[in-house]
Amino acid sequence: MPPPLSPPDPPDPQNPEGAIAAAAQRCSNWGRWGEDDRIGTLNFLDDEKRREGAALVRRGVSFSLSLPFDTNGPQNGWRRRTNPVHTMLDTGTDAERGVQGFPHGLGGADDVIFMPLQSSTQWDGLGHIFDHGRAWNGRAAGDVVTSEGDRVTGIETAASQIAGRGVLLDVARTLGQDGELTDGFAVTAGHLDETAARQGVSVGRGDILLVRTGRLTRARRDLAAGRGWCDYAGGAAPGLSFTTADWLHDTEIAAVATDTWGFEVRPNEFEVAFQPLHQVVIPHIGLFIGEMWDLDALAADCAHDGVWDFLLTAAPLPVTGAVGSPVNPIAIK
Amino acid sequence: MPPPLSPPDPPDPQNPEGAIAAAAQRCSNWGRWGEDDRIGTLNFLDDEKRREGAALVRRGVSFSLSLPFDTNGPQNGWRRRTNPVHTMLDTGTDAERGVQGFPHGLGGADDVIFMPLQSSTQWDGLGHIFDHGRAWNGRAAGDVVTSEGDRVTGIETAASQIAGRGVLLDVARTLGQDGELTDGFAVTAGHLDETAARQGVSVGRGDILLVRTGRLTRARRDLAAGRGWCDYAGGAAPGLSFTTADWLHDTEIAAVATDTWGFEVRPNEFEVAFQPLHQVVIPHIGLFIGEMWDLDALAADCAHDGVWDFLLTAAPLPVTGAVGSPVNPIAIK
Amino acid sequence: MPPPLSPPDPPDPQNPEGAIAAAAQRCSNWGRWGEDDRIGTLNFLDDEKRREGAALVRRGVSFSLSLPFDTNGPQNGWRRRTNPVHTMLDTGTDAERGVQGFPHGLGGADDVIFMPLQSSTQWDGLGHIFDHGRAWNGRAAGDVVTSEGDRVTGIETAASQIAGRGVLLDVARTLGQDGELTDGFAVTAGHLDETAARQGVSVGRGDILLVRTGRLTRARRDLAAGRGWCDYAGGAAPGLSFTTADWLHDTEIAAVATDTWGFEVRPNEFEVAFQPLHQVVIPHIGLFIGEMWDLDALAADCAHDGVWDFLLTAAPLPVTGAVGSPVNPIAIK
Amino acid sequence: MPPPLSPPDPPDPQNPEGAIAAAAQRCSNWGRWGEDDRIGTLNFLDDEKRREGAALVRRGVSFSLSLPFDTNGPQNGWRRRTNPVHTMLDTGTDAERGVQGFPHGLGGADDVIFMPLQSSTQWDGLGHIFDHGRAWNGRAAGDVVTSEGDRVTGIETAASQIAGRGVLLDVARTLGQDGELTDGFAVTAGHLDETAARQGVSVGRGDILLVRTGRLTRARRDLAAGRGWCDYAGGAAPGLSFTTADWLHDTEIAAVATDTWGFEVRPNEFEVAFQPLHQVVIPHIGLFIGEMWDLDALAADCAHDGVWDFLLTAAPLPVTGAVGSPVNPIAIK
Repeated sequence: MPPPLSPPDPPDPQNPEGAIAAAAQRCSNWGRWGEDDRIGTLNFLDDEKRREGAALVRRGVSFSLSLPFDTNGPQNGWRRRTNPVHTMLDTGTDAERGVQGFPHGLGGADDVIFMPLQSSTQWDGLGHIFDHGRAWNGRAAGDVVTSEGDRVTGIETAASQIAGRGVLLDVARTLGQDGELTDGFAVTAGHLDETAARQGVSVGRGDILLVRTGRLTRARRDLAAGRGWCDYAGGAAPGLSFTTADWLHDTEIAAVATDTWGFEVRPNEFEVAFQPLHQVVIPHIGLFIGEMWDLDALAADCAHDGVWDFLLTAAPLPVTGAVGSPVNPIAIK
Repeated sequence: MPPPLSPPDPPDPQNPEGAIAAAAQRCSNWGRWGEDDRIGTLNFLDDEKRREGAALVRRGVSFSLSLPFDTNGPQNGWRRRTNPVHTMLDTGTDAERGVQGFPHGLGGADDVIFMPLQSSTQWDGLGHIFDHGRAWNGRAAGDVVTSEGDRVTGIETAASQIAGRGVLLDVARTLGQDGELTDGFAVTAGHLDETAARQGVSVGRGDILLVRTGRLTRARRDLAAGRGWCDYAGGAAPGLSFTTADWLHDTEIAAVATDTWGFEVRPNEFEVAFQPLHQVVIPHIGLFIGEMWDLDALAADCAHDGVWDFLLTAAPLPVTGAVGSPVNPIAIK
Repeated sequence: MPPPLSPPDPPDPQNPEGAIAAAAQRCSNWGRWGEDDRIGTLNFLDDEKRREGAALVRRGVSFSLSLPFDTNGPQNGWRRRTNPVHTMLDTGTDAERGVQGFPHGLGGADDVIFMPLQSSTQWDGLGHIFDHGRAWNGRAAGDVVTSEGDRVTGIETAASQIAGRGVLLDVARTLGQDGELTDGFAVTAGHLDETAARQGVSVGRGDILLVRTGRLTRARRDLAAGRGWCDYAGGAAPGLSFTTADWLHDTEIAAVATDTWGFEVRPNEFEVAFQPLHQVVIPHIGLFIGEMWDLDALAADCAHDGVWDFLLTAAPLPVTGAVGSPVNPIAIK
Repeated sequence: MPPPLSPPDPPDPQNPEGAIAAAAQRCSNWGRWGEDDRIGTLNFLDDEKRREGAALVRRGVSFSLSLPFDTNGPQNGWRRRTNPVHTMLDTGTDAERGVQGFPHGLGGADDVIFMPLQSSTQWDGLGHIFDHGRAWNGRAAGDVVTSEGDRVTGIETAASQIAGRGVLLDVARTLGQDGELTDGFAVTAGHLDETAARQGVSVGRGDILLVRTGRLTRARRDLAAGRGWCDYAGGAAPGLSFTTADWLHDTEIAAVATDTWGFEVRPNEFEVAFQPLHQVVIPHIGLFIGEMWDLDALAADCAHDGVWDFLLTAAPLPVTGAVGSPVNPIAIK
């Protein structure tokens, strides 16, 4: 259960740098788990939490929270983030044709992929964002991530960690108009608390929080209508308010994920800033952020049975030195 | 609990094609789940099994069963299977240097990967192997896997399925010399049953079976001694005997994974054949096979506490049309 | 000098298959250079032609006819053709930071690329297009190009060939309105001959013909105006008429390249067809086609000095088994 | 004709840093072509030189100096330099099978490549090597090459430049035992001059110099004998002595290429150093270096007809911001 919070005053829209610095100071977890810590808030996700998560499995039904990984995805090339390109090394047509050189009728198919690690459903690792040249736990950014990758907090450090109690806050269904939040809607701590209260669920230490905004539901409608992904990747979206930094810190959640490209509200609440909430929560809180998670089927099920917590496993692919990872999160109720 | 089995006579080493055809006929699951089935033995892994798996979580301790994904892996280029290449789109050194163009001290790191989907710890999908031009459920290979990928049984069809009861049979520890099986050691149904009996654990319908041969333990020793991976990928290895096809079919397990490159014993038991057990179990049984799984830490824990079953989640990355998938399997005890 | 041609009657727009078959029959070079031939019309480009090309160098000025290779290119993902993605393995920021581990102040930068071979300026190889399952010289398509690549006519067979006399026909400047042809403008044999006549240049056996439509000039204006590439890749464009098949065959040119994505006019002259001229010229004539060549600077120079032929070298990158190749063609006048 | 040179004293093997600094000071071209220069010694390769090169074409015979680009190449993964991986997007087997969805019998094949830009025959660009954080022309390395690539001297700046007079010095044939130099053989200015004298050819301003050591010939023998590439990439090799820095500077050549992986002798002439000649010639002289060029067929021809100079075109692929480029150099005699 989150502690009572006095939400911070809204930040001055003309002073993002000051607001970021102030939030960073209030919310910093630097040193909390020692100088050598590499996993930040995943420290909250302990064996007890995993037992609690497993105990939530009642029906045994499972949900994949992953979007597809393919060339038809939402990426538009921003900063060289393209969609995944999957190609075949061997095919069934070749096998049928008998050109593969295997004996006795054996045939095979094999494949490769080229993809930005943040091209579809993914985790941001702790090396993904820096604040004034500082990475998680106060390290110099250049001591952490070089062109060889993240030498300290690479996503492989979280390989076995992310399994525990998941909680879905369906802010869209609870507070949205027609079940969806509009672009630019800033989800505040108050919205999160109210949604939790209405759903009858608590969020607290070690939980993996999922926040549904309905943005992906809308993107799906666009796709179905032949309009493509529009600006799902990188455009305007509902998302967490900059002011939730304290809530995200104080609740001591292990991780948070949303159904949007950028997790936080876009455009953000400052006149000129880029992903300011990231700048606080990743390097200062040490929080793992999931983006582009598909929460729709799970949310529909939760709305139906009124149960909003579940076992969640979301193990990143342990790409050595990666600052993020594609992931296929599985929720089991 | 597996049914009593009269193990098939050892196959004629000079007639692989006949042995494969006979085993395929005995073990075929074609049509068992209807004409349209796309997930084969994962049909055995149902909600009840997931409840059973979740109920096995007692301590809450979790194990990643994945090898690293990086350029230092075991691949040697066979059929263009290289090791993963991970590169950065943005780095901490760039962020420190102030060359990224973000406002207010924000810095970022981002990355991409190029990798064969079977380069490290992975699932074989049902489109991975064909027998005489036939894929799982009797479909023509060329109707299933073209250069656009697997249009029918792509790994995305299994995206939400693979979570349930895992059982580890540590044949190496139980029957091996010094805790490891030698290259060419063919693990038979008898060995599997004996290991299960000695460990005091059962294997049955819907389970995800993990078989440890100790081959990876040896590869690790080679690595530590500066000898590199030697021929871990594609060379000789202990593994399942061709004669286990019936056992794999009759036990109605949902999936099986080993700590070797190729799952089955290498060299195999025929004079001239290539992965003959694959040729039976993937297209005919519809069985999901996991390869290069790291079972060492989990096995040590199981040997210590004497508990050999656990909750296992091993969700493939839903790469559309993929015939395999990298995976970071998580076992929770 | 091209032989006098009686241009074929315009094809029936409702019978593309018939028109293609008829043109293929009229223009076929199958067997012309023996059963084993792998380079088609490059046979016309002999040592004498290279001497002739070299003798055209008078001023020594050179022009690159290549577009950039980068993420900002025109590709839109059609059939998984994305833009090139170039990433760094080592950087100057890392070198400055001293994190590379080299002795005595040495620093380095290194890079990788992922790209479709037809993503920017390129050659179509002879394995790029098939007609009713037949590749160049009458071979079965499946005997030529499998998922392992082109085993017979891979672009490496042309590695040393493509250097000789280049001729630019600037149809856009000569016949276009405001120096550009409009989308859907079908360049006929008559247009080519008239342009050659007005320019005072001949086109004949062994030449590498460059045809400028002005389409790229327009794309550049779109880019400069912030409209992006629009549909330069895959959209409507001026280009060679289907009826030029005979001219392309009879002139015995070695290769032809244009400043468009698709070489032939788009939409084409049939009610329903896709790249019908390709279907004749690649598998039947054995003609090398260059696409997305940047002819603008060269054309301006030729218009200025009135000299329309030059030494042209356009060596493909010998990617083993490739059906096309990126290329940086160099014209020297 | 090179000016008479008093070769520098051999450097102190225990003071590489001092020797590098001294050579850098003697040979520096910083500022020679202005503050903004981006192409270094390619400034020597002017229109007159291209005319001179073209005039060397007498027979019209052409040679590709490129190795293949494929998975079977010499790379071993050092610093993530792998061999190229070429995969198909569409194949002839698919076309035959009728699964491509094109009308009227059209079929197609298409492909992609993933490759380090230095994986096979290549140019080092001017952003490839730094000395104490300084790049060509004295720029700070971090101002030049970030993870976005080389923003100043990207290989695209040389797109139209590299065509001119090529000269082959076959030191292996002239001075080697059995026509090959041994590993560790340091080719000095004296060796270069003597070879030129014996061949009866001059090397001077604006020339593109090719130096054959025979190392690739030996690698080919290893391959043919089933021994693989051995350590062709990154191992010991003959090559240019560190003491040639002055010769390379004073002759005012435009570029130099060899048939080895690393251009300079390996191991080098210092007790502890890594590619010390690179550290002088790229950032200080501004010299373009070609590596892994296949000079064997050209050398045989030159030995046969006694003509050692020719037209050489070696246009890099203009990958925006690349610090190197694959290249298929073409020599025409």
